[in-house]
Amino acid sequence: MLQANEEWAQRFPGSKDVRPARKVAVVACMDSRMPLFPLLGLEVGDAHVIRNAGGVITDDTIRSLTISQHLLGTREIVLVHHTDCGLEKSDDVSFADLVEQATGRRPPWAPRFFTVVDDDVRESIRLIQESPYLLSREVRGMVYDVETGRIREVV
Amino acid sequence: MLQANEEWAQRFPGSKDVRPARKVAVVACMDSRMPLFPLLGLEVGDAHVIRNAGGVITDDTIRSLTISQHLLGTREIVLVHHTDCGLEKSDDVSFADLVEQATGRRPPWAPRFFTVVDDDVRESIRLIQESPYLLSREVRGMVYDVETGRIREVV
Repeated sequence: MLQANEEWAQRFPGSKDVRPARKVAVVACMDSRMPLFPLLGLEVGDAHVIRNAGGVITDDTIRSLTISQHLLGTREIVLVHHTDCGLEKSDDVSFADLVEQATGRRPPWAPRFFTVVDDDVRESIRLIQESPYLLSREVRGMVYDVETGRIREVV
Repeated sequence: MLQANEEWAQRFPGSKDVRPARKVAVVACMDSRMPLFPLLGLEVGDAHVIRNAGGVITDDTIRSLTISQHLLGTREIVLVHHTDCGLEKSDDVSFADLVEQATGRRPPWAPRFFTVVDDDVRESIRLIQESPYLLSREVRGMVYDVETGRIREVV
């Protein structure tokens, strides 16, 4: 990665403002098949990118969005979930069992597995709309198809 | 973004396994100036990407890393913090005051501002090494320079 970064530095597009130019924060799954900048046509400096397992809304997601809006001026949120998600491949109890068997410790946090991706996008939209800390709750939800590279909006 | 995604779909590199090929999870700041895939030379399918305000280690980061390792086979962690971070531009109390003044509600979570980026990378390394839920604590920490595009390792 350090070597590859030398190549990036050679074609580095130059300094940009800390405040995202498009005033958007993207919340997406950590999945390795989603390079969000090219996938959404983002340029360096355009949008905050918040990612976790599932792209779900947790206290930490709300913390990041609150800082993004109050301190750095974003006003829209785009959610990107996807097909074939790891978070559809188990359930909260089975996964907690797995971690406990492997480490001897049961996680105190909910793993946040889900069954239907569109429902999980709607749940994320609901959690954003209910948060009292945000300045803007302008939010749209997408599902990325890892077999075709296409996103579609969840309505 | 939906229009730009059509262009991505035209040059989509095809289906990849849900398990990251390089068995790496990257934990980075949400900053809009870090397109992590080209910046680290990652190809589609190579690595999980977890991002939040500051790239700090929270319960949600540990949740994501635990799922990444136990369910999807990653075994190394790379941290990417950066220069000129929004999280250096205030402090926890001032930021909570700002949110309370704007929304009438004081956040119950710590905003996680910091003063010296290298120290925050070391603190993240410490929190990973102390987590009881991970299978591997192989971790290296980097700082990205937003003025040059170069990363350097924190030792």
